[in-house]
Amino acid sequence: MDARKGFHYALEELQQSILKMGVLVEEAIYHAVKSLANQDLKIAEHVIQNDRQINERMIEIESLCLKLLALQQPMASDLRVIGTAMKIVTDLERIGDHAVDIAKTTRRLQGEALVKPLVDTPKMAGMIKEMLHEALNSYVKRDVQLALSLAEKDDQVDALYKQIFNELQELMERDSSNVKQAILLLMVCQNLERIGDHATNIGEWVIYMVSGDRTDLNI
Amino acid sequence: MDARKGFHYALEELQQSILKMGVLVEEAIYHAVKSLANQDLKIAEHVIQNDRQINERMIEIESLCLKLLALQQPMASDLRVIGTAMKIVTDLERIGDHAVDIAKTTRRLQGEALVKPLVDTPKMAGMIKEMLHEALNSYVKRDVQLALSLAEKDDQVDALYKQIFNELQELMERDSSNVKQAILLLMVCQNLERIGDHATNIGEWVIYMVSGDRTDLNI
Repeated sequence: MDARKGFHYALEELQQSILKMGVLVEEAIYHAVKSLANQDLKIAEHVIQNDRQINERMIEIESLCLKLLALQQPMASDLRVIGTAMKIVTDLERIGDHAVDIAKTTRRLQGEALVKPLVDTPKMAGMIKEMLHEALNSYVKRDVQLALSLAEKDDQVDALYKQIFNELQELMERDSSNVKQAILLLMVCQNLERIGDHATNIGEWVIYMVSGDRTDLNI
Repeated sequence: MDARKGFHYALEELQQSILKMGVLVEEAIYHAVKSLANQDLKIAEHVIQNDRQINERMIEIESLCLKLLALQQPMASDLRVIGTAMKIVTDLERIGDHAVDIAKTTRRLQGEALVKPLVDTPKMAGMIKEMLHEALNSYVKRDVQLALSLAEKDDQVDALYKQIFNELQELMERDSSNVKQAILLLMVCQNLERIGDHATNIGEWVIYMVSGDRTDLNI
């Protein structure tokens, strides 16, 4: 196998590693919100423990990227592919941290009954999980249109976030005994909203990788 | 000038660019909190507008790093220096975003009188600004001890955050008319707390740059 073929094989491997990390992160979001909605401390601990794995993946992928850059002297377009990989894993790792924050909220509630059943929060979580999935799809397919479509999805997430925010605010204003828990639930939604931003970031990186242009999808 | 000398000159330039970006980010934090404490919309708009400059610096520095990696085939230690630079600018950029979030809170309050004068929040801001300054100092001096000391500072910031959190929660529980504003102030403190985490991240990168070890200073 010549050096060029070896390099492209390595890029393929890099992509696979990112996708595997993406799956771990998607699962973390899903389980974190499930732990909260079902008040399941066991699942929450699982998410918190598993974050180490996500961090390790990031370190591995970053090391691989640096090695590829240093050894291969890649051309401009390959340079962007590797630079993009390094940025995407940073976003994925931060998403993992947000999932941990959500799981820690489950831990802080310690099985306390929820002031209201969680309906919109899991809905919001479903939306951002889909966004992340599409962001990773746009990466694999190098699909700029799909990446661009994340901006609209993010607006929908932001609208739902505002709605939940207002509801929780009302809940606090109506009955002061709701304050403590409502603050925690508010922060959960803020974590979800941030995850949406990171998914949008990934879309921006895909556009950069394909076209070389830096776009702001989050305005 | 031979290639090796040219490379070290480029690394020196890279460090200078990061420090300049660091100064912009420190100013953003300072002005964002000042805009909030003084209810000064003009300063808030200034912070929001200036964030573009911070983002542009990040893009410039990242491009420089990728070029250096691709053209120079650096050795392991230089590889770490460049990899570290790429990660530090990501943290600095996120800090800039948090400063913008704080400035946007000033905008949302629209000159509304504060439920209580801000004393602890500017104190917390001062602490995290100092942390950031020390993180950047540890980077310039390659000072692992200074980087390690950030963990303790971050604990102090977290303790103050908890105190402010409890006070704001009490304020909401006592009088429901405080809820709306107290939520916003709570989020400001959360932004500050996150900035502290990013400063700690920078310290972790410095340790990695110098020693090759990955440390978690934020536990």
